[in-house]
Parts: sequence; structure tokens; C-alpha cells
Amino acid sequence: MKLLVIYTYPNQQSLNYEFLQKVIKGSNENPNIKKLQVLDLYEENFNPLLVFNEQKRRRDMYKEPSTEKYRKQIMWADKIVFIYPIWWGRPPAMLMGYIDQLFAANFAYRDKKGLFPEGLLKGKSVVCVSTMKGPAHYPLLWLHNAHKILMKKALFNFVGIKKVKFFEFGNMESPKGNQMKKLERIYRYFKKIDH
Amino acid sequence: MKLLVIYTYPNQQSLNYEFLQKVIKGSNENPNIKKLQVLDLYEENFNPLLVFNEQKRRRDMYKEPSTEKYRKQIMWADKIVFIYPIWWGRPPAMLMGYIDQLFAANFAYRDKKGLFPEGLLKGKSVVCVSTMKGPAHYPLLWLHNAHKILMKKALFNFVGIKKVKFFEFGNMESPKGNQMKKLERIYRYFKKIDH
Repeated sequence: MKLLVIYTYPNQQSLNYEFLQKVIKGSNENPNIKKLQVLDLYEENFNPLLVFNEQKRRRDMYKEPSTEKYRKQIMWADKIVFIYPIWWGRPPAMLMGYIDQLFAANFAYRDKKGLFPEGLLKGKSVVCVSTMKGPAHYPLLWLHNAHKILMKKALFNFVGIKKVKFFEFGNMESPKGNQMKKLERIYRYFKKIDH
Repeated sequence: MKLLVIYTYPNQQSLNYEFLQKVIKGSNENPNIKKLQVLDLYEENFNPLLVFNEQKRRRDMYKEPSTEKYRKQIMWADKIVFIYPIWWGRPPAMLMGYIDQLFAANFAYRDKKGLFPEGLLKGKSVVCVSTMKGPAHYPLLWLHNAHKILMKKALFNFVGIKKVKFFEFGNMESPKGNQMKKLERIYRYFKKIDH
């Protein structure tokens, strides 16, 4: 299994960075994971802005040279792991911008007759590890799971990725947040996964 | 009434730009609207990336000099109008980045005991005009209104803005999209609003 980890946090002095370290450590100790690539969007200075106009057509985005290497990473991966904080109920603008540009028509999906397109990333799976300041039941009770719905239904299912697992960790700035336990849980998960 | 229009679309050859023109035209003909400012985030080359680290603390974001003028615009406005497309079920990364940076603690809200903070933008109202390629019932039926929930509950209500009106226009790339009628509807709405 080939794993691509997409990490989105501006600061390495952070719990998100610790989660990244646990994903890497667990994966390295997992014989089912043959190869691992990490894309740190901030470190990479990824430009999150999707621009299109008369010269640069949106329909050509799937072959845009400046994002070619990122498309290759996605094609290469069997499983894609996203690590990010929840800001305002959803991932940071940086990750949204990666999605705006990478999940292009004729790369991630192909329009066909009917309401839904043909997903071109079929067979891959996704794990989302997200952290938030508030309690973990807040997105469920108050926001009707809007974050998960956006990621799973509006994005991953749309491009053909059916297997999506979420870890949503709440109270991450609180002394009662069980941070060590949650880091340990991620480490154990990635040490064991086999599909 | 003072109106701030925040427009997010990369290309002026677009229906979003036509909607912007209708908002401006209607507002200019409305005696209740005394002043109008337009912030075109792409034209402005707004940098959507929220960065914080050991030197640049997140807790100081509310007084960050580079975004000072945008905070002043928000304080100035009685009503804020957002015009944007729906990409992957939500606004573009550019607008998400404006939100990540502008709606800072101690500017837009203040933490206090209990689950919810004190909203500091009380009294203002918001109108969201969004366009999408798919049919307008898709976000409701398939995505459980995730877009509206994120904008209204996770963002505007959180900072004290209770009055939020949505125009979600679907089928915007279709010949059957009634584009002219919808543009006209926006023009008439902004020509008439009085609070």
C-alpha cells in the first residue's frame, strides 16, 4: 500500500504536527505500507488560488503544468491521509485551495449524463485526521456534520472515493483533551491498517 | 445603510461578475443605501493564507497591520454581501482565507465561559449570493444544506450576526438556468432593501 499524507498547518510547534509524526511512525512500522510520501502544503509554499480566465481555461486545469507533480502524487497513492485543523467548521483555506486546483474535471471526475459524474479516483481510500478547539460533539449536534458531509459527499464520493474514515478530535486546546491518548490512537491505527 | 460587497471570482467574464453589477446597480438606485464599498478579493491580490508561528502569534491576529484595512471595512459596514461560486459544496479557498484571517478572536468574537463566545459583530447583517453548476436542490437534498450551515451557524451566528439571507442559484451553466431572471431578481432585491 502506498500512502500520501497531505498535511496542512502553518506551524510545526503544534499538535497537528505531532499527529503527522504519529502517522509517519505508525506507517513506517506497518509492513503493509510499502511507501510513504508527505506533502506539507505550507512548507511547500503551495499557492492555494485557483485562477482561470480567457488565457488560462478552467477546462485545461487537469493538465496545468504547475500542479502536475501533485496530480502524479494522487495517482500514485492508494490511500490519502489529510491532517488539518477545523477552522470555522471546515478545513483551512490552504487545503480548500489544494482541492480547488487538484480535483479537476477530467482528472478527478468526468462529466456524463445525469446528476453525478464518473469518479476517476475509484479504488483509492481516504483518512481525515482533524483537530478542533471545541468539543467533538459540536460539529455533530450544532453543525449537522457539515464538515464530514462536505469532505465525504461533496468531494470524495464525487470523485469515486467511497472509503473515507474520519478522526475528529475535539477539546484540543484543553488540559482535559486527552491529547496523548489520541496521538497514541493514531499511531496504533496507522501501524495496523492493512487496506 | 452602508453596504460592503465582498466579491470572489477569478474572472470578470462570468455570471458572478454580472451578479456583482446587479448588486451595485440596485444599491445605487436604493435611497436607503448611503454608501457602498466593493472588495474584489482576486483583483485586490488578497493573500488567503493564515500564517502563525512563534514570531507571529495567532492571538495577535486581531491587530495584524496587513489586514487592518479589511477589519475597518467590516466595522464600517451595516450589511455585508458575499458573492461567490460554490466549488465542492462551499465557497472558494480565496473567500475561506479571507474568513480565516479577518474573523479573528477579539475582533469578531471574544471567548468567554461556556460553549459559545460573545459575538462582536452584532447588529450587522449578511447576504450571500452564490452560484453553482448543479441544480439548486442538490445542496439541500444531497448535502443537507452543509454550505448554509457552515456560513450561517459556524461563522456568522458565532460572531453575532443573526440576520443572514441566502440566494443559492443552481444550473448556472445550463441554457435552462434562467440566468437573466435571477440577475433581475438580485437587482430588484438590492434596489428595495431597507434594513
